[in-house]
Amino acid sequence: MSLIFDPQIAERVRASFERQHAMRLIRATFPVVEQGRTEIHLPHWQGVEQQHGFVHGGVVGMIADSAAGYAAMTMVPATDSVLTVEFKLNLMAPADGEKLIARGQVVRPGRTLIVTKADVFAIKDGKETLCGLMQQTIMVMHGKVEK
Amino acid sequence: MSLIFDPQIAERVRASFERQHAMRLIRATFPVVEQGRTEIHLPHWQGVEQQHGFVHGGVVGMIADSAAGYAAMTMVPATDSVLTVEFKLNLMAPADGEKLIARGQVVRPGRTLIVTKADVFAIKDGKETLCGLMQQTIMVMHGKVEK
Amino acid sequence: MSLIFDPQIAERVRASFERQHAMRLIRATFPVVEQGRTEIHLPHWQGVEQQHGFVHGGVVGMIADSAAGYAAMTMVPATDSVLTVEFKLNLMAPADGEKLIARGQVVRPGRTLIVTKADVFAIKDGKETLCGLMQQTIMVMHGKVEK
Amino acid sequence: MSLIFDPQIAERVRASFERQHAMRLIRATFPVVEQGRTEIHLPHWQGVEQQHGFVHGGVVGMIADSAAGYAAMTMVPATDSVLTVEFKLNLMAPADGEKLIARGQVVRPGRTLIVTKADVFAIKDGKETLCGLMQQTIMVMHGKVEK
Repeated sequence: MSLIFDPQIAERVRASFERQHAMRLIRATFPVVEQGRTEIHLPHWQGVEQQHGFVHGGVVGMIADSAAGYAAMTMVPATDSVLTVEFKLNLMAPADGEKLIARGQVVRPGRTLIVTKADVFAIKDGKETLCGLMQQTIMVMHGKVEK
Repeated sequence: MSLIFDPQIAERVRASFERQHAMRLIRATFPVVEQGRTEIHLPHWQGVEQQHGFVHGGVVGMIADSAAGYAAMTMVPATDSVLTVEFKLNLMAPADGEKLIARGQVVRPGRTLIVTKADVFAIKDGKETLCGLMQQTIMVMHGKVEK
Repeated sequence: MSLIFDPQIAERVRASFERQHAMRLIRATFPVVEQGRTEIHLPHWQGVEQQHGFVHGGVVGMIADSAAGYAAMTMVPATDSVLTVEFKLNLMAPADGEKLIARGQVVRPGRTLIVTKADVFAIKDGKETLCGLMQQTIMVMHGKVEK
Repeated sequence: MSLIFDPQIAERVRASFERQHAMRLIRATFPVVEQGRTEIHLPHWQGVEQQHGFVHGGVVGMIADSAAGYAAMTMVPATDSVLTVEFKLNLMAPADGEKLIARGQVVRPGRTLIVTKADVFAIKDGKETLCGLMQQTIMVMHGKVEK
C-alpha cells in the first residue's frame, strides 16, 4: 500500500455510504475511512433488536459487510466500483452493549477480487467484546463508476 | 419429519418473529411457517436500499438468516430456543424488484446443531430471480425457553 | 441450459481431472460429467482416514470442491478455465461407510463468477447419508485454456 | 489463556495428529503445537498437485482445517474431544512454492463451540505468500475422550 492516502478516495467512499439508505435506517455512522480499513459504528437502539433485546445478527452482518466492502473500495481507482460476492459471518457472543463497532480490513487486494475481513465488537461499559467475525469476497467492477 | 405439524409450534415461531424489532424496522412479514421451512417477505422500499437503489446485501442476509433460523426453530421442542452460530451468503444478482422472498429450509436437524439453507428471490414484474443463497448453522439451546 | 451437451466438453473436463495428481492420491474417480453437474466417488480406505477411522473432513472438502468446480467447468467455453475463489463446507455427520459420493451442481452460472453447491453422501450398507454440504464460488478465467 | 501450557496437552494433540492417516498420505508434518495455535507444514510434491502443478485447493483446506482444529483441541480438557462443524476457505493465490505452512489459531474459545481461523502460506525461495484464509467452527464433545 502507498504511504499517502488520497483524501479524495475517502471522500468518494464516504459519499457512497451516505447514499445507502439502509445504513441510515439502522442509524449507522462511518467515522473511520483509511487505506484498506474502515469502521462503522452502530448505537444500540430498539429498532435493530432481535427477540432477546440484543442487536439482530443480520444487522451485525450488515455493518460487517459494509465496513469490509468499503475497506475494499479504498483500494480501487475512481473509475471502478465494488460489489459483495459473498460473506461468511460467525456470531460468537450476543451483540450486547451500548454500541457496536465493525472494523473492516482488506486482507488481500487483487485486480478483480479483493478478500477482506471484519471484526464486530460490542461495547458495554467501555469494554469491547468480539461478537462477530466475518470473511468476505469483493468483486471490482472495472470502469463502472459509482454514480 | 412427522406428518402432523403442531399449530402451537407455528404460533410460538410467529410470536418470536413479532418480538424482533429489526424485522419490523425493515418491514419484513412472515407469511409462511411450516415444519422445517418458512418464508419471509420484504417489500422493496427506500429505507432498505444500498447506494445503487437495490436492496442492501446485508438486508438480504437479515431475511435469509431469520427465515432459515425460524425453519430450524420449527424443529425444536417448546422448552428449547435456537441461535445462529454462523451463516454464509452468496449474492448472485442485484436484489432488484418490487419485493424479496427469503425461503428458509432445514437441511439436517441435529440434537445440538441444525444445518439450514435459504434461497432469496427478487420478484420483478412477477418473475422470480435467485439473488441470494445462504448456508447456515443453528445451535439448539436446550432448556432455554424463549420468553 | 441447452438440451444438447457437447461430448467434447465432458472429454475436456475429464482430461483435467486426470491431470489432478491429488485426486489420484486419494483414489477418487469421476464417473459422472453432465451439463452443470458431476459426481466424484471415493472409496473408503485407510489412507484418507482421520483419527476416528472416518474419512477426513478435509478430504470430504477436496471431493466437494472438485465436483462442484468441474460442474462449473462444464458451463464455460473451451477457451476459458475455472478457479475456486472460495468454498464453505458443513460437516453434518461422520463420513462413515464403504464409499463417498460428492455431487456437484451449478446453482447460478455467470460470465465471470459461477455459484455452485455440492452434497457429499456416505454410502453404508447401500444407504446414503448426507455428511457434507458445500457452497462455492468459482471464477472463470477468460482466454486461459487449460493446457 | 493461562501462562503455563501443559506439555501433556501438546502430547495428546500430537498423538491425535499421528492417528490421522490422511495427514500422512499428503506428507504433512506438525512441528508447532502451542496453547491456542498450531502449525502444519506440507512439502510440495507431485501427489498433492492439481492440474496446473500447484497444490490442490482441497489439500490447502485439509491442512487449514486440521491446523485450526488442533489449535482448538489445545483449549479443551483431556476428557473432551473436538469436531469440525464447518469451515470457509478463500483461495487467494496459487499454492505455488516448495512448501506450505498452515497456521491455525483460536479466535474465541467457548464451552461448546470454538471459533478459529487459519492462514495458509506458500513458501517460495524463502518468501511467504498468503494463499489461503480460513474461518472455522469447532464443536467440543464433552466427555468423549479421543481414544
